Amino acid sequence: MLEKLRERVLKANLDLVKYNLVLFTWGNVSEIDRESGLIAIKPSGVSYEKMTVDDIVIVDIDGKKVWGKLNPSSDTPTHLEIYKALPKVGGVCHTHSTFATAFAQAGRKIPLYGTTHADYFYKDIPVTRTLRESEVKNDYEKNTGIVISEIFTELDPVALPAVLVKNHGPFTFGENAAKAAFHAAVLEEVAKMATISEKINSALLPAPQYIADKHYLRKHGPNAYYGQKE
Amino acid sequence: MLEKLRERVLKANLDLVKYNLVLFTWGNVSEIDRESGLIAIKPSGVSYEKMTVDDIVIVDIDGKKVWGKLNPSSDTPTHLEIYKALPKVGGVCHTHSTFATAFAQAGRKIPLYGTTHADYFYKDIPVTRTLRESEVKNDYEKNTGIVISEIFTELDPVALPAVLVKNHGPFTFGENAAKAAFHAAVLEEVAKMATISEKINSALLPAPQYIADKHYLRKHGPNAYYGQKE
Amino acid sequence: MLEKLRERVLKANLDLVKYNLVLFTWGNVSEIDRESGLIAIKPSGVSYEKMTVDDIVIVDIDGKKVWGKLNPSSDTPTHLEIYKALPKVGGVCHTHSTFATAFAQAGRKIPLYGTTHADYFYKDIPVTRTLRESEVKNDYEKNTGIVISEIFTELDPVALPAVLVKNHGPFTFGENAAKAAFHAAVLEEVAKMATISEKINSALLPAPQYIADKHYLRKHGPNAYYGQKE
Amino acid sequence: MLEKLRERVLKANLDLVKYNLVLFTWGNVSEIDRESGLIAIKPSGVSYEKMTVDDIVIVDIDGKKVWGKLNPSSDTPTHLEIYKALPKVGGVCHTHSTFATAFAQAGRKIPLYGTTHADYFYKDIPVTRTLRESEVKNDYEKNTGIVISEIFTELDPVALPAVLVKNHGPFTFGENAAKAAFHAAVLEEVAKMATISEKINSALLPAPQYIADKHYLRKHGPNAYYGQKE
Repeated sequence: MLEKLRERVLKANLDLVKYNLVLFTWGNVSEIDRESGLIAIKPSGVSYEKMTVDDIVIVDIDGKKVWGKLNPSSDTPTHLEIYKALPKVGGVCHTHSTFATAFAQAGRKIPLYGTTHADYFYKDIPVTRTLRESEVKNDYEKNTGIVISEIFTELDPVALPAVLVKNHGPFTFGENAAKAAFHAAVLEEVAKMATISEKINSALLPAPQYIADKHYLRKHGPNAYYGQKE
Repeated sequence: MLEKLRERVLKANLDLVKYNLVLFTWGNVSEIDRESGLIAIKPSGVSYEKMTVDDIVIVDIDGKKVWGKLNPSSDTPTHLEIYKALPKVGGVCHTHSTFATAFAQAGRKIPLYGTTHADYFYKDIPVTRTLRESEVKNDYEKNTGIVISEIFTELDPVALPAVLVKNHGPFTFGENAAKAAFHAAVLEEVAKMATISEKINSALLPAPQYIADKHYLRKHGPNAYYGQKE
Repeated sequence: MLEKLRERVLKANLDLVKYNLVLFTWGNVSEIDRESGLIAIKPSGVSYEKMTVDDIVIVDIDGKKVWGKLNPSSDTPTHLEIYKALPKVGGVCHTHSTFATAFAQAGRKIPLYGTTHADYFYKDIPVTRTLRESEVKNDYEKNTGIVISEIFTELDPVALPAVLVKNHGPFTFGENAAKAAFHAAVLEEVAKMATISEKINSALLPAPQYIADKHYLRKHGPNAYYGQKE
Repeated sequence: MLEKLRERVLKANLDLVKYNLVLFTWGNVSEIDRESGLIAIKPSGVSYEKMTVDDIVIVDIDGKKVWGKLNPSSDTPTHLEIYKALPKVGGVCHTHSTFATAFAQAGRKIPLYGTTHADYFYKDIPVTRTLRESEVKNDYEKNTGIVISEIFTELDPVALPAVLVKNHGPFTFGENAAKAAFHAAVLEEVAKMATISEKINSALLPAPQYIADKHYLRKHGPNAYYGQKE
């Protein structure tokens, strides 16, 4: 069932290893098939070395397993809330990559300090509020998706495909699983550069917005002129 | 003698290399066979590249060698004290991994700043008191085990399988040698993330305890729902 | 056309990967043939893994493509301005390497703290002014080259073959593409050492100029005595 | 001539690459044959990838080449001064490894913060004074050896086989070339741990001397009990 989708999701999960973003099994990527409303996602607690396309699980938008033998990632309800709230998102990725997680633990957004950031993320990377005790005790993973969705009531997840969950770690988005994983790698590098930049200049201010505009728009949107015409 | 035990201990010692936790011979892992009371441990000062299952030494709980040609790790008396004081511990691992050792040198516990920490360690990672001069001069390695044991009179080494020895480095535990080595890798990443988090936010407070509870208990205990049913 | 030149430019671009300076496609190296005034440069947005000598594009000094099927790097106008303004430069390299980019984002020059720096760069690594909004909105890449050129009205790009573009990242030079890429690797290490040195000593002053003189001149100029006679 | 010596020196130079201590050609190791007074040393500016045993140069204690086709390392006069002043030294190693060089640039000794340091270096790692302008202008490399020797008029280079040259980088010693290179790797890790420890605890004090005594003496001297009897 949906084998092409499962293949793409497997590959995106393995990309996390290639990009040096995961230790052990700490990461998961999913992709939604918007036509059928079904989601392919990594199984829970399976090592990347052994994972095959038949380990990828298919669930429906309510989290009911419709294909596969294994349990889906325990973060599945978070992915589902994101797909429900953000119809422009096609893939979701969650990691515990070191510097992005450190910003999440520190409870700070990542300021837009330069063009590396602006080439992929149009604004500062936002951080969610702390989940309340009641939100953690019941339906924790679902509520994690809800606090993420709150952030994007005023932001566009296509222009800003990343968010930090306070005390937890980063979630990134994309038009598909591969792009979501790709954005996780960019985010980690951006977080690392921001950390070092602040160490070098403790009074650092963000870059002018017009530089952010230029870099984002030369790669994205109708007047983009980066890369090759397809 | 106890070849399966020695094989597991060899593999766990080699895991330290795989996890990038050791330079040269700076680390050792052991496992106890609780039935016979015998412990398999790494030999002293032998390189990981050349180590074989027949280099692993078997000692009894008093440190007397009962099998093997080589000297056991000079840290053996520390391992033995831990096994004596903490009956729930099945494996012990000691490394000089960079960030965990830096916290040990700094004499600070590692605060629980996020879910990466809470997934494996239920509370802050404790640090021992400084050993007194008399404790260092005589029976140093044994006394190192004793100051570790002091920490766990009020803490559960199953829920919190890690401790930092002041001015020295980390020791981690597990139900067996493999899990002790695994916890050493998690601890190093947690220590690195904590260091960076504090750099990003110099007024950082620990995560709410209810987040720690949730993450620990979704992976451990009777109501765990992470991973696959075995 | 100019196949030898394209081969050298391909190799220098692949050196960026070997030197661990690039993530994804974030870097570009070019070389000018001063006799014909033609420049070979990396194509835009092509992965290093797949790049071949026939993907390298040839443009003239006004940016008109004279050979090749792909679009040249979107940073091409920056390279061209540098070649126009600085006749002693034979190769240009641009990366987003982590520590050099962090200095660029921090808007600080890299002080000459030691002999590693002085062996290759005779003075502090300068940083450009912030581009004005009008300079970003129109002819951004060309104007990036112009603010770089402004720096070298008073500095020699042979003795100081590196500059940081504010909020962006490093550009390095050389007599050819390979040397420009080589300087990018040295610059990254120098930036990393400077960051750590300032952390170790927050009141750090630059090294005496006579040490810089000695190290630079023992490797460069008529009385150099480093290396082998060719 | 002295082929075994040259083989050992080649291997020790390649160890620098294996230990991740060098970028390009930035490092050199030598060993003295105390009987003949001859020294084998790395050639100047030759890449590690291409270096063979016949590229290693033999010089006498006055720096006169007695065997080999290539120029010896431009740091040769520094090595020679060390061998002249410190008769217990059998091998000398110089690198620009990142953290040790950062301490040298910062002009600070590396405090003994823990047992990793004490296992190999009995005290704080000292730093030389700044060379005077006249000492840099004439016989610079020889004078570098002299300021190193000054440090060891009151310290034992066997118990403390490392020193930082101000604004330059580390030199390490050993009974032979391999041990000098080994100490360079330990020094780098010790410097890295010290940097991080100070970040974690900005009011950090060195470890008690009795811990340093214990760790050094359990590995070295007549009552050592670490490793295997040979």
